[in-house]
Amino acid sequence: MGAFNSAGDWYWWLLLPVYKWFVLQLAVWALRGVTRVILANNPLSGAVMLLALYWASPWQGLVGTVGLLTSTLIAVILGQDSAEVRGGLHGFNGMLVSLLMGAFNSAGDWYWWLLLPVCLGSATSVFFFSGLSQVLDRWDLPVAVFPFNMVIVLYFLCTGRDNPYFPHRLAVPPSTVPLNATALSATEVLQGIPLGVGQIFACGSLGPSLLILAGLCLYSPLQAIHALLGSAIGTLAGLSVAVRHECLCTGLSGFNGALGCMAVGGLFFTFNWRTHLLAISSAFLSAFVDIALSNLLGAMGMPACSWAATLSVTLLLLLTGTLSTYRIPLARVKAPERNMRSRGRWEAGNTEERDSTDV
Amino acid sequence: MGAFNSAGDWYWWLLLPVYKWFVLQLAVWALRGVTRVILANNPLSGAVMLLALYWASPWQGLVGTVGLLTSTLIAVILGQDSAEVRGGLHGFNGMLVSLLMGAFNSAGDWYWWLLLPVCLGSATSVFFFSGLSQVLDRWDLPVAVFPFNMVIVLYFLCTGRDNPYFPHRLAVPPSTVPLNATALSATEVLQGIPLGVGQIFACGSLGPSLLILAGLCLYSPLQAIHALLGSAIGTLAGLSVAVRHECLCTGLSGFNGALGCMAVGGLFFTFNWRTHLLAISSAFLSAFVDIALSNLLGAMGMPACSWAATLSVTLLLLLTGTLSTYRIPLARVKAPERNMRSRGRWEAGNTEERDSTDV
Amino acid sequence: MGAFNSAGDWYWWLLLPVYKWFVLQLAVWALRGVTRVILANNPLSGAVMLLALYWASPWQGLVGTVGLLTSTLIAVILGQDSAEVRGGLHGFNGMLVSLLMGAFNSAGDWYWWLLLPVCLGSATSVFFFSGLSQVLDRWDLPVAVFPFNMVIVLYFLCTGRDNPYFPHRLAVPPSTVPLNATALSATEVLQGIPLGVGQIFACGSLGPSLLILAGLCLYSPLQAIHALLGSAIGTLAGLSVAVRHECLCTGLSGFNGALGCMAVGGLFFTFNWRTHLLAISSAFLSAFVDIALSNLLGAMGMPACSWAATLSVTLLLLLTGTLSTYRIPLARVKAPERNMRSRGRWEAGNTEERDSTDV
Repeated sequence: MGAFNSAGDWYWWLLLPVYKWFVLQLAVWALRGVTRVILANNPLSGAVMLLALYWASPWQGLVGTVGLLTSTLIAVILGQDSAEVRGGLHGFNGMLVSLLMGAFNSAGDWYWWLLLPVCLGSATSVFFFSGLSQVLDRWDLPVAVFPFNMVIVLYFLCTGRDNPYFPHRLAVPPSTVPLNATALSATEVLQGIPLGVGQIFACGSLGPSLLILAGLCLYSPLQAIHALLGSAIGTLAGLSVAVRHECLCTGLSGFNGALGCMAVGGLFFTFNWRTHLLAISSAFLSAFVDIALSNLLGAMGMPACSWAATLSVTLLLLLTGTLSTYRIPLARVKAPERNMRSRGRWEAGNTEERDSTDV
Repeated sequence: MGAFNSAGDWYWWLLLPVYKWFVLQLAVWALRGVTRVILANNPLSGAVMLLALYWASPWQGLVGTVGLLTSTLIAVILGQDSAEVRGGLHGFNGMLVSLLMGAFNSAGDWYWWLLLPVCLGSATSVFFFSGLSQVLDRWDLPVAVFPFNMVIVLYFLCTGRDNPYFPHRLAVPPSTVPLNATALSATEVLQGIPLGVGQIFACGSLGPSLLILAGLCLYSPLQAIHALLGSAIGTLAGLSVAVRHECLCTGLSGFNGALGCMAVGGLFFTFNWRTHLLAISSAFLSAFVDIALSNLLGAMGMPACSWAATLSVTLLLLLTGTLSTYRIPLARVKAPERNMRSRGRWEAGNTEERDSTDV
Repeated sequence: MGAFNSAGDWYWWLLLPVYKWFVLQLAVWALRGVTRVILANNPLSGAVMLLALYWASPWQGLVGTVGLLTSTLIAVILGQDSAEVRGGLHGFNGMLVSLLMGAFNSAGDWYWWLLLPVCLGSATSVFFFSGLSQVLDRWDLPVAVFPFNMVIVLYFLCTGRDNPYFPHRLAVPPSTVPLNATALSATEVLQGIPLGVGQIFACGSLGPSLLILAGLCLYSPLQAIHALLGSAIGTLAGLSVAVRHECLCTGLSGFNGALGCMAVGGLFFTFNWRTHLLAISSAFLSAFVDIALSNLLGAMGMPACSWAATLSVTLLLLLTGTLSTYRIPLARVKAPERNMRSRGRWEAGNTEERDSTDV
């Protein structure tokens, strides 16, 4: 782990005990991991988002933190690439696994036994990340949240509503016809748009969702706009196939659209009007695929998580033709704003920038 | 788009307005796309097949044409490889998506709102085609109808029987035991064999099915024979595991067998007695896999479309051992009859033939 | 088939008729195939294991033998790589397909029609093996029992409980809450551990399971220990999510753990304390994934077979980081004990050992 001495050598005497230094480093890696959930990469944004999670529910915040730290530590122990660990790439899947375990747990808050599957699931996500990266690298594709989606599906399949130790709520397919449908209020639907951003962290309260959005804005305003746009598109897609009102109002219809829109709009493709249109298509695709997969997995009582956005973005990253010329190689992906500036430079052959994981 | 001047330069003065010229070109590309559905590649056959579709049902013909043109145009707009577009490779998936949407739509014919998902689904199939081609190219595999199968499954999952805007019929698993089974008439089962060829275009009438077969004969008699043979094998496979009589009589048991048989018998493998045996195996494999997948997807009310044939042929194209020596590289695949003649030549090092997409 | 003269040329005059010689060779290949089921490779162990199967149920022994011979012969006919055939790599999938068909068949023993799907299924597994090997070779991954798992799922989907020709029992998901749960006896659970080793061959009797374990010990004591350890871990995992008592007592909870533990502990990774910990993780992962997949496939009445162990081991073989340095390249994999000895040699550049398929 050369990571120990990678930065800030000049104040080593301030933090003489190595373990304190390691704890501080770990905190930075973990905070980067928090932002990775929403496709950002900035410890400060991470702190804001973590705060939002603790605000929404202290128990969820704790569960998320445990998952985040467990998977980051396991990655260190397994000797994963230190640049990846420092960039927070091994934290976000574990965190998402934990947050979803917490959100669907039906044994109530502060059910301490839940930390057992949280730790195991987070650790497993590191194995999935490492294994999948070898396969996806062949096509220069990001592993993204595939590990989270796989681990959480396995967890939900293992346990169930009636499990004596780890019971969980069942998800309801979005196309279920409600018994007594109420009229849809425009305000509630509009509220669903910012909630869609919060739902990326499995958070369904308005305040914390706005705080998460603020944290994202801190990293990249362009990405925050795409998140809102994508969530709105997702809600529109939900309306077009008449999903349950609950899905629209809680933001569940929007979060896959938001993820799909953010990933294409500026992050993995240089931002311009063509890729902006692609980002809108990506949001629609993610949203419709999410409705399809939610109906499929919902038939087994499982949520579709972010399978839809992950699969859709992976597909669009594989695209050939004119649009593929705007794609940014994975090793050069930064914040949308920096992508726009740096593209010209590296295309001109200037290869001085290698710090692709720092922001 | 160098495609504009690719052929027939001598009569450009006849069609001075460029848009007319483009429309004519597009028509040829689209008609090639029609034949691609049934693994052929010939605008004239395409015209015959399209005629058959309009004969069977004008609404289905219209829906199919809209899907065909949409996906071809989207491919042009997305700047896909012009040789592929000219060869009709971007039309057939969109057409199939549209035809299936039309065939399973339960809101009745001339339900104009259906054109909305038809256009969206066809456009999406281009994205899937482009993305999947990058992955499958590594093993020199054709993308085939994977995009169609994926898009249509997503569409069926998104909507449902009770969808207020886009309701569709539910498919019944072939192994469902009927309440009052009637005796099976040999004539009806035999009729199912040519119907199996029509079912490739989701067409269940005998006359149009025979016309489609005639169109296929125009392109390659060998392939037409394989289509009938495969459909017969599919029916046999259906009988062997006692599927519902309806599946046998409507040709639904046969069409995957037909596709599997055609693809291996002469198209992707040089025709000889060994590959003929492989084609028969392929038809059996496709038919049995289709029964399996129809039972699986039918449990969710969805048809298995041509998943079975696509997966089986993909598997057989990956085959190693003696049989793989007869495999024709994807770039050299032509009509079965021409494959037989050209093989000797290109094996002898004669590389003058590059026009692999023309027939 | 250069295989004919590969060994024992000096006593060719003893077995003048070539067909007898071929039959003897085939027997050795087939016996190697028997051991491949349990990740071993030794004709003598194979004979012991086959004996155990005949002891448990003569009909199951016969069905297994038919499948084993069919798939080996089909591989010879299809001209598969002769080294693979001689190593028994084309026998074990067919054998497993047959054993599972027999075990779930509800038409009773000595139902001779079953040999039809047994032969077809075994033959199909060779096609799957050959096709999948081309894809998995890119990542130096073993095909393992993927073909078996795929073919048996297709078979179960094709037929069903009510099939008039090939009826089969339905599997029950392990998380089903029993109507009248009885207290769990420790003896029964402990008995489930050796039974877990037998369940790899779909054998649920204690005596034959112990004989199989003895046969494995003959090949590699280290692997036998890992099999028992993995089965115990699988049982523990089953207890932790409260699966049905029946699963625990019959060894069904244990066999995926056993496979996962054996594959990682010494076979595909050099044995040391780090990989021993990985083997334990692998057993846990396989066991939990098995519970998840059994619940998923069990909802359709199908058993999850060894999907879990196969997928888990494939994932761990893809692992990057420190642990991947202990991975043994696929072409050099031998018995665990020989892996430990030979690693030093081939790392030192000594490349004299090429007989990786012999034991």
